[in-house]
Amino acid sequence: MPTPTLEPHIMERHLDQQLEHIRKTLLHMGALVEQMIAKANQALVDRDEAAIAEVIRQDLEVDRLEMVLDEACHTTLVRNQPTAVDLRFLVAVMKINNDLERMGDSAVNIAQSARQLNQEPPLKPYIDLPMMSEKARGMVRESLDAFVRRDARLAVEVCQADDTIDAIYKQLFRELLTYMIEDPKTVSRALHLLLVARNLERIADHATNIAEDVIYYVEGRDVRHSLAKSKVVVEAS
Amino acid sequence: MPTPTLEPHIMERHLDQQLEHIRKTLLHMGALVEQMIAKANQALVDRDEAAIAEVIRQDLEVDRLEMVLDEACHTTLVRNQPTAVDLRFLVAVMKINNDLERMGDSAVNIAQSARQLNQEPPLKPYIDLPMMSEKARGMVRESLDAFVRRDARLAVEVCQADDTIDAIYKQLFRELLTYMIEDPKTVSRALHLLLVARNLERIADHATNIAEDVIYYVEGRDVRHSLAKSKVVVEAS
Repeated sequence: MPTPTLEPHIMERHLDQQLEHIRKTLLHMGALVEQMIAKANQALVDRDEAAIAEVIRQDLEVDRLEMVLDEACHTTLVRNQPTAVDLRFLVAVMKINNDLERMGDSAVNIAQSARQLNQEPPLKPYIDLPMMSEKARGMVRESLDAFVRRDARLAVEVCQADDTIDAIYKQLFRELLTYMIEDPKTVSRALHLLLVARNLERIADHATNIAEDVIYYVEGRDVRHSLAKSKVVVEAS
Repeated sequence: MPTPTLEPHIMERHLDQQLEHIRKTLLHMGALVEQMIAKANQALVDRDEAAIAEVIRQDLEVDRLEMVLDEACHTTLVRNQPTAVDLRFLVAVMKINNDLERMGDSAVNIAQSARQLNQEPPLKPYIDLPMMSEKARGMVRESLDAFVRRDARLAVEVCQADDTIDAIYKQLFRELLTYMIEDPKTVSRALHLLLVARNLERIADHATNIAEDVIYYVEGRDVRHSLAKSKVVVEAS
C-alpha cells in the first residue's frame, strides 16, 4: 500500500471518498431518525404495538451509526489533515450526528409513552400532537437538506419554525394541566401526553441546533443564542 | 510577524498556549455550570428569588463561553493542524462544551419551575430533589476532573452513578403521580417538581456523556451504548 503522505493525489482522492462516505452515512442516519419520529406518532395515534417495537429496534441502529460516524470523522481528521472547508464539514457532521442520536432517544421516549397510553382508552382525539410531530419531522428533513445543499436560508427557516412548535407545546401544557386538575382519572394519561409533547419539542430543538450548525458551516457566523430563540422553555408561565 | 509554518518551535509553543487557554476556559465554564445547578437548587429549597435571577444571568455567560470555546477549537484545528492526541483533546472539548451548555439550560428550567412553585405553599419537604441535585452536580465535577486528569477510571464511576439518579427519578415520578391523582390541588406543583426532577436527570445524562467522551479521549474506545445505561428513560413503567 502506498504511503499516503508521499502520494498527495491518492490521498486527496481518498479524502473525497471518505467525505462522501461520511455524508451518505449521515443522511442514512437522518432518514432513519425521520422514520422513527413518524413511527412513534403512528404508535400513539393508531395504538400500534408493532410500531413501538420498530422504533426501539431502529434506535439500536441509530446508536451504532453514531459510533461509526464519529469514528470515521476522527480517522479522517487524524489521517488526512483536512483544510478549512473540509474541516468545518467534519466538525459539523460530528455535531449533527450527536443531535440525530438524541432525537432517536426522544422518539423511543415517545414510543414508550404510547405503550403506557395504550393501556387505557384515549383521553381525547389527538390533533395537536400529530401536527407537532409532522412539523418536527419536517424540521429534521429540512435541516439536513440545508446541510447537504449548503443552504443557509433554508437553515434560517428551520430556526424560525421552532417558534411554532414552542407555541403549540405551551398551549398543550395548559390544556393538559386543566384536564388533570378537573379529573384525577386523567392524570396518568395527561402526564404521558405531556411527555410526548416535551419530546417532540426537544426533537425540534435538536433540528434547530443542526440548522445553526449549518449556518456556521456555510457562512462561518455563529447564530446560536441570537437568531434562534433560547432552547430554554418557559413551562406554563 | 513570523510565518508560523516557517517557525515550527514558535508554532508549537503557540499550540500549547492555545490548548492551555482552551482547557482553562472549559474549566471556568464547568465551574459556572456547577454553580448554576447549586443555585437552582437553592432557588427551589430556600424559595430564593435572587438565586433564580442569578441562574438566568449566569446562563448568558455560559452561552457566550460556548461560542468562544467552539471558535477557539475551530481556529486551532485550522491553523495548527494538531496531531492525534491534541486532535482528540479538541474534539472532546467541543463535545463537552455542548453538554455543559445544555446543562446550563436545564439549570435555567429548574430555576423557572422554582419561580412557579414559589407562588404556592410547598407541596412537601424537599428531600429527594436536593439529594438528586447534589449527586448530579458531583457527577459534573467528577466528569471534568476525569477529563483534566485523563482518569478513565473516574469517568467509569461517573457513568455508574447515573443509575442512582435514574432510580431516584423513577421513584419521584411515581410519588408525584400519586399526589396528583389523590388531590387535584397538587397537580400544578407536582408537575413542576416532576419537571425539576426531569431536568436533574438530564444534567446527569450530560455528565455521563462527558464521562464517555473522556474514556474515548483517554483510551480510544467508544463505550457509548454499552457501558453506561441507555439515556432513554422509562417513565413510570
